[in-house]
Amino acid sequence: MKSAVPVALRAEVEDLYARYVEILDEGPLADWPSLFSADASYRVVTRENVDRDLPLALILCESRAAIEDRVYAIEKTTFALPRRTRHLVSGLRIDGSGAPDTCDVEANFAVFETVEERLTICHSTGRYRDRLVRGGEGVLHFASKCCICDSPLVPNSLIVPL
Amino acid sequence: MKSAVPVALRAEVEDLYARYVEILDEGPLADWPSLFSADASYRVVTRENVDRDLPLALILCESRAAIEDRVYAIEKTTFALPRRTRHLVSGLRIDGSGAPDTCDVEANFAVFETVEERLTICHSTGRYRDRLVRGGEGVLHFASKCCICDSPLVPNSLIVPL
Amino acid sequence: MKSAVPVALRAEVEDLYARYVEILDEGPLADWPSLFSADASYRVVTRENVDRDLPLALILCESRAAIEDRVYAIEKTTFALPRRTRHLVSGLRIDGSGAPDTCDVEANFAVFETVEERLTICHSTGRYRDRLVRGGEGVLHFASKCCICDSPLVPNSLIVPL
Repeated sequence: MKSAVPVALRAEVEDLYARYVEILDEGPLADWPSLFSADASYRVVTRENVDRDLPLALILCESRAAIEDRVYAIEKTTFALPRRTRHLVSGLRIDGSGAPDTCDVEANFAVFETVEERLTICHSTGRYRDRLVRGGEGVLHFASKCCICDSPLVPNSLIVPL
Repeated sequence: MKSAVPVALRAEVEDLYARYVEILDEGPLADWPSLFSADASYRVVTRENVDRDLPLALILCESRAAIEDRVYAIEKTTFALPRRTRHLVSGLRIDGSGAPDTCDVEANFAVFETVEERLTICHSTGRYRDRLVRGGEGVLHFASKCCICDSPLVPNSLIVPL
Repeated sequence: MKSAVPVALRAEVEDLYARYVEILDEGPLADWPSLFSADASYRVVTRENVDRDLPLALILCESRAAIEDRVYAIEKTTFALPRRTRHLVSGLRIDGSGAPDTCDVEANFAVFETVEERLTICHSTGRYRDRLVRGGEGVLHFASKCCICDSPLVPNSLIVPL
């Protein structure tokens, strides 16, 4: 029995997630909004709130313009010490059976953080629950991205994107 | 030189492991046994015992029915605090050159655990050493799954499946 | 829009990285140099030095013979306690558009370490920035491998390869 996901779509989705974490970890962060469609939403929520059906989000951007604002805010933030993230994504679940030119994707993530001159630590883990859409130019973008954090607590801060 | 693993088989194996970790991390755990064949075995062992050829397993289920019993036991366990796992699997090594309709797979895993209202921590890492078998309906299942833990110690407990 | 990376090349690259981490984590370490071309370089550097364009490397091997020497040194090292690594690699970015029979690959890595009778900890995270080359026999090898560590500090030691 073959996988229900066409090989070409799987490769495209893998490329998008690889590019996503590359931008967050290697920069430039200014490229991050380009992976979203113009009316995309980006949310960070806690597992607890998802389980209880509570709407509160730790971060909520309701358009690519709002994501661009967030990039601006992050770049203007003064950190006491420089820091750097490292994202690992695993277990992509791809469902392209819905509306044409859309695709639902879930995956596990783990984020590690290194504050200058300290040991690397586990920052957070969780689940991406995303919808991708193919734009006019034929390229997949995030139509919505929801990052569900396993813990409501993270060391240091939640300023860096997940 | 092409990979020795056909693209379609690779995609199927990736899907199975993605589904496996989704069930363990997102639930429902009652779906977990459905990924195993009826006479499958599931074992959790320590690296130390594997290296010394000692047969002791931390967990041993010798059929799907035994795995179903384990699900029942886990669901009836009272934890002092709710907890949640997050599995990452990487580096799939797939060998489909053996008996027809079987496939040997190894991969690295890391499991993170979040106990309610605490920071996420690394629970355990190790190696899956599995055999897959294609059943009458054409779908790949685990004929045997062996989780080799790098450390004999894990924080909190080994109750949650690896 | 299809991925720019042919499916067959992607599979080959995934196999090489899966084999790479298998050798480092499962052994035998003596097989590690066989994944490099004869004139390959292997470097471990800190992010800080990369960002500041400083040439200092924590580890530098300028040929496969030098990598073989390193294997010898590691195997002769007496550790106070046995230890074991577990590598996770994620987000492969593959660029095969350059010179024929070469391929540039970047990926995120996380390494966990287990010292006997202790809990598993995060050893280091970082970015691989590698060049692959196809040899006369048609097999991909590392022509250069650069491991960029997010932190200049690692727990225990940097003796084990990344």
